Formats: sequence, structure tokens, C-alpha cells
Amino acid sequence: MLVLILNAGSSSLKFQLMNHATHDVFASGVAERIGIDGRLVVESNGTKTKKEVELPTHKEAIELVLESLVTKPNKVIDSVEKDIDAIGHRVVHGGEYFSKSVIVDENVITKLERLIPLAPLHNPAHIMGIKICRELMPEKPNVAVFDTAFHQTMQESSYMYAVPYEDYKEYGLRKYGFHGTSHHYVSHEASKLLNNKDAKVVVCHLGNGSSICAVKGGKSVETSMGLTPLEGLVMGTRSGDLDPAVISFLMDKKQMTAQEVVDYLNKKSGLLGVSGISSDLREIIDASEKGDERATLAIDIKCNRIKKYICAYAGILGGLDAICFTAGVGENASLIREKVCTGLDFLGLELDKQRNNKKQSGKREINTETSKGKIFVIPTNEEYVIANDTYNLVKDL
Amino acid sequence: MLVLILNAGSSSLKFQLMNHATHDVFASGVAERIGIDGRLVVESNGTKTKKEVELPTHKEAIELVLESLVTKPNKVIDSVEKDIDAIGHRVVHGGEYFSKSVIVDENVITKLERLIPLAPLHNPAHIMGIKICRELMPEKPNVAVFDTAFHQTMQESSYMYAVPYEDYKEYGLRKYGFHGTSHHYVSHEASKLLNNKDAKVVVCHLGNGSSICAVKGGKSVETSMGLTPLEGLVMGTRSGDLDPAVISFLMDKKQMTAQEVVDYLNKKSGLLGVSGISSDLREIIDASEKGDERATLAIDIKCNRIKKYICAYAGILGGLDAICFTAGVGENASLIREKVCTGLDFLGLELDKQRNNKKQSGKREINTETSKGKIFVIPTNEEYVIANDTYNLVKDL
Repeated sequence: MLVLILNAGSSSLKFQLMNHATHDVFASGVAERIGIDGRLVVESNGTKTKKEVELPTHKEAIELVLESLVTKPNKVIDSVEKDIDAIGHRVVHGGEYFSKSVIVDENVITKLERLIPLAPLHNPAHIMGIKICRELMPEKPNVAVFDTAFHQTMQESSYMYAVPYEDYKEYGLRKYGFHGTSHHYVSHEASKLLNNKDAKVVVCHLGNGSSICAVKGGKSVETSMGLTPLEGLVMGTRSGDLDPAVISFLMDKKQMTAQEVVDYLNKKSGLLGVSGISSDLREIIDASEKGDERATLAIDIKCNRIKKYICAYAGILGGLDAICFTAGVGENASLIREKVCTGLDFLGLELDKQRNNKKQSGKREINTETSKGKIFVIPTNEEYVIANDTYNLVKDL
Repeated sequence: MLVLILNAGSSSLKFQLMNHATHDVFASGVAERIGIDGRLVVESNGTKTKKEVELPTHKEAIELVLESLVTKPNKVIDSVEKDIDAIGHRVVHGGEYFSKSVIVDENVITKLERLIPLAPLHNPAHIMGIKICRELMPEKPNVAVFDTAFHQTMQESSYMYAVPYEDYKEYGLRKYGFHGTSHHYVSHEASKLLNNKDAKVVVCHLGNGSSICAVKGGKSVETSMGLTPLEGLVMGTRSGDLDPAVISFLMDKKQMTAQEVVDYLNKKSGLLGVSGISSDLREIIDASEKGDERATLAIDIKCNRIKKYICAYAGILGGLDAICFTAGVGENASLIREKVCTGLDFLGLELDKQRNNKKQSGKREINTETSKGKIFVIPTNEEYVIANDTYNLVKDL
């Protein structure tokens, strides 16, 4: 089945056209600067085209993406109508409504609209993307795949904050967690490698955004992101955890509004804030190797936090069968993996430094032969999950 | 040496008169509602007296406390001038200036004044208490003992938040940690019990305010409270950790100011907020035993958080020799200790349920005989630390 995978943001639209069975990507790309001016980047057949176009709204963006798929030089299908089977939409927030992917109908759209207060930057764009697809391709099924859905198995004692219970009921104030498709995919791959359906696994999704998830028997038990993706690990520009009183402290000291402080914690903090150099870990590692102390500090704070979460989640799971590293940093930054795993012998985890340092792609084991628990690097594939969920939901329609 | 221990709050003044060597408490009590109306409670010689008095300022409060010590029915000394050797002051915030207790001089007072922005509710009262003692008892040395001092051994990677570095430099925005005298005392007692000066110990100070501390070789490595005492564990009325974005979320949803949200998180959250019953754990345990689901939830959230911190700190320490429970809840609530310790076998910690449930005072071991790591209950004694530090600083004057 050919699935068009869409990830609609406020001013961008990422896409892939994927065969759900082979995972072959026929085409991929992004429409950017929607509503500003517009640019379309498409890659297929080994050819990458980039053009400035007028993209006043997401509708023109989707129209141009579809057109590019049937037009040279990026032509990969003859007809949108005949060759695309379904559309899979990445949706950030499914709240408490959705614990798995669903075929979109009016009822689903109503629920997505109700969730806008929880994801004001994301859900409106997703809804727009879905509505436009229903308008442009009325015969095709649309499937929504949620970042939050995998974490809906968390127990109340894991997802509740210690705040007045009424405000959970009234405003949905709780931990939701994100990166669910990635945590789901990677933990499932780990279970297969372990040949253990009940495995206790911690997945470290370390990209520009980062989160950790404790998984037991294929179910998310707890995760580090919360009401929003700000909570938890140190990320490229996000602070992750800190004393909640920091917000009012900064408002007072720097004469900022609350929203300005949240922006500061989301966009100017994390690795960028500590290092003063970059949000890109590669640049920070370079600087650290050249002796930059703040770059080294940024790395240490980040790794310290990851290590604490791994161990905390080992506590929640009652021990660990494996930890998995995934996403850009997790898959590539051997230094980070080494720093995180150093001193975890007491958990039965021993990193093999040589295996860890070996440049290699694909999933792999990087623990020593004698290590009781496994340490895996498992490349994530969120698009695959979206294509697969879409296939499974629409195949019998 | 007889030490007068003072803990001056904004409208209260707690005191003890203690022999530093024997730890005998000659008298203790509290002057309350200072600046409102006034009440003085004094306990000595097995007699507790309580009287309504005029306490317009802390000066009258200290005068009356001193008077009570030389006047029947609470008379315990003949003369303030002759019998009190020194005054030890509990001071909440020593910032980065103080890594241990100090004899107060003008320079110390100047520093305490500079720290007011970090502890606006506490340090002004402490300074007032110190100044009044210097005025009323000009011959006596005053010693300041800080809640934060013990944690000044934390590494930068543990105390720094992942925020722009300049704001640490400019405003002192970092983790300080509190309950330092308690963590110091209890971890020291644990080291003695373990007969190991380099022991890796986690201290759980669980009172109405609660914090956890990782201690290695007698030094604080990391602790759960942060810039303020709001961060970390779930407490009586404090939320502890949550997504920093919760603050702006609540401001928006409930039309509150940032300060109102911080008050909400400090005073209406925690056990009280979740249970809707009380901030007192005993009442919540009662309700839970009667089947109240929110009371049970509050307990579960609290214990879940403690367990995660213990394991996270085991990670930072590279394993654990012992965990210690202290303060009101830690010393008395066997249910909490049991819930926290269940499932920590993978850390080598096995609770002996019978020992744990035995009603007993004093320090004790509650792990099984076969447990690799120790689980201790160690009653804290912050006043003893204050008396002892005071003695050590002034004995050679």
C-alpha cells in the first residue's frame, strides 16, 4: 500500500510517500515558509529539487506536493487518485481521547479541535492538513497517528502532577508525553532483539527534542516529557526540568512575561543556553574537544540528566533488560552514549567502548559480552509506524 | 557549652537551649504571631506554658524568650549573661558565599542581605534575629548555620539548570538545595553505622517539606530541592517537580498571576491538592485505608517520586551502600518506607517488613539480613548540628 505521510506544522508541511510493506520511500520533502512566501523541496529518484513558490496557505502546499509526485523530474506515480491509497497524518496531541491511531471522521476532527488548548501550536495545523486532504482527495482515507497515544497506558500515579485534582479534571493538566511513535517502534524492536515480549526497556530518544520512556511488556509506563515537550531532558534549546519557581524568579529579575519565560526556556535554553555556542550537539562536542568549558558543562548536564532518568525508570520498572539509544544524537553521538553508560555497572549494564565507537548504521548491540543487560542503538522510524498504522486501519475498508 | 538555638521566621521564632555535648535540651519553644498579636510557648522542666503576649516585633519575642529562661515556672538558668555561651542561628539561604557555618560579623550580615532576593521570605527574618541578639547580648558570639551550606559541594553539572549561563552569573539562578543540616547529620550517622567514610548514601528527608540527597564520602553530590524548596519531591502542600510550562498554562486557564501560581504550587498542591483532604500524611493514610481513591493516589504519586529519586541518585553515585529515612514521615510512616522500597531488589536493597513495621524510636536498620545494601531509619537532629557547629566555631574564641 502506498501511504502519503504528512506532518503539517504551522508554516511547514513535511511529507513522505512510502510503501508500507517494504518501507521504501518513493519521495520525500517539505513545503516551507507557508503563509510567508514559500519554498518546496522534493527528493525522489535520487533527484532533489528546490523551488521558490507562492504558498499562501497549506492548501497550495499540499496541491504542489501532490503535483510534484506526478510531474517530472520528481515524478514517482502516474496518478494521485489511482496510486495513493491513504494518507497518514502525524498529530502531536491526542490527549486522553486517543490511545491508538484512528481513521479520521467528523468525530475525530471535533476531538482534535477540543485538544487545541493543549497543543495550540500544533493541532490547528494538523487539523488544517487533514481537512485539506479530505477536500482535495475525498475518496482517500485519512489516518491520525498521535505522538501521545503510546503513553496513554501510563498509570495515574505516573501521569498526575501533584496539583489540585480538580485542575486535572477541568483543564486536562497532566503528563501526556510525546515521541510516542518513536518510543513504540524502538521498544518493539528491542523486544524482538531480546526475544522477550515482557521486556523491561528504557528508550532514550535523543534528537533536537529528547525524551526517555520506560516500557514494560510493550507498554509505556512513564516518560519524561509532560504536559508539553518542555519537561524532562536537556535538549537543543529546551531546559527540561527545573524548579517551577524559576519562572516567577525570571519574570521578576528580567522583567519578562510568563509567555516570554516559557519561550526563553523552549528556545534559548538547553545546550544553546549553557554553551552559548549552538543547539547542535556536534558543534558543542567540537568546542568541548577544543577545551571550551561551557561546552563541556552543557554535555555534562545533558548526560547527567539522561543517566538519572535511566536509573529512575529502572526503579519504576524494577530493573532493566535493555536501554536503547535512538534519534539523531542517540544513533550517532558515541560520546554521549559513553558518558551516559559509564558507572551503570550496578544496573548490570556494561558498555563495550569499541562497539560503541564503531561508525555503523542500522540496529546494533553495544554492550560487552558479559553485560547482563543489553545496550542497543536502534534507528527510529516514525514514518514507518505512521505508514504501518495507516495500512492496518484502512486495509479492510 | 550552652547554646541558644534560634530559628527566626517572618512571624515566628523557634528556640532551644541545648548543651552541645550531651544534646540535652534545657528548654524549647516558640514565639508565634509576631507583629500580629503574639503567643509564647515554652517547655522546660517537664512544664509547658503557653501565654498570649504582645509581640509587636522580633525584639520583644527574643526578650521574652530570654526572660522565660530565667523566670519560674520555666526557669532553667540563673542568668542569660553568665549561662548562655553562644547563639546558633538557623539560616535558610547561604547562597554561594557559605559552604559551612560561620561566626557572624558585619561582613556575614552584608552577605546575608545580598542573598535576600534568593530567600525573600526567610533571610530578612534571620538577619533581624541576628541583629537583635547582637544588640541584646553584645558579648555573645552568634553563629549562622545554613540550610544550603552542605550542598555547596555539588558539581556544576549537578547544580546548573540548562538555562542561559549568563543568568546564573547575573542572578544566581542555580540549584542550591535545602535541609542541608539534616542531610549532613543523617548521612554522617549512616557512615558511622556502615563504618565507611566513603559510603554512598541517599538520605530521604521526608517531613512536611521533603528532599532527597545523594552523599558520597560525606559530601553532598546532588539534592532534589533547587533554587527554592519547591522543586523535587511531592510534599504536604508543594507540588515538587512538574513541567515548567504548567505555570503559564495555569496563568492562562485560571487567570492567575505568576506569583499566584507559585503560591498555588507551594501551598495548595502536593498531598493536599491531590487528595483534597489534608497536607498531613497521617490523615491521608487513614483516608486511603478507608478506601478513598484520591488519598491512595496522593500516596502513590509521592512514593513513585521518592523511588525515582533514590534510583536516579544511585545512578549519580554509581550504586548505593545505604538509604536513610528521616524526619517526621521518614521516621514514622512505615507504609511510605515499604512502598518506596518495594521493587528495589535490583539495587541490592531488601526491606524487612517486620523490622519496618515495628514501632520503635532511635536509629535502626530495617533491611533483611541478606540485603546487600542497608536501609536505615535515622532520626534527624538539626538543632544538634547547629549547637555542635556553634561550639566548634566559638570554643577557641
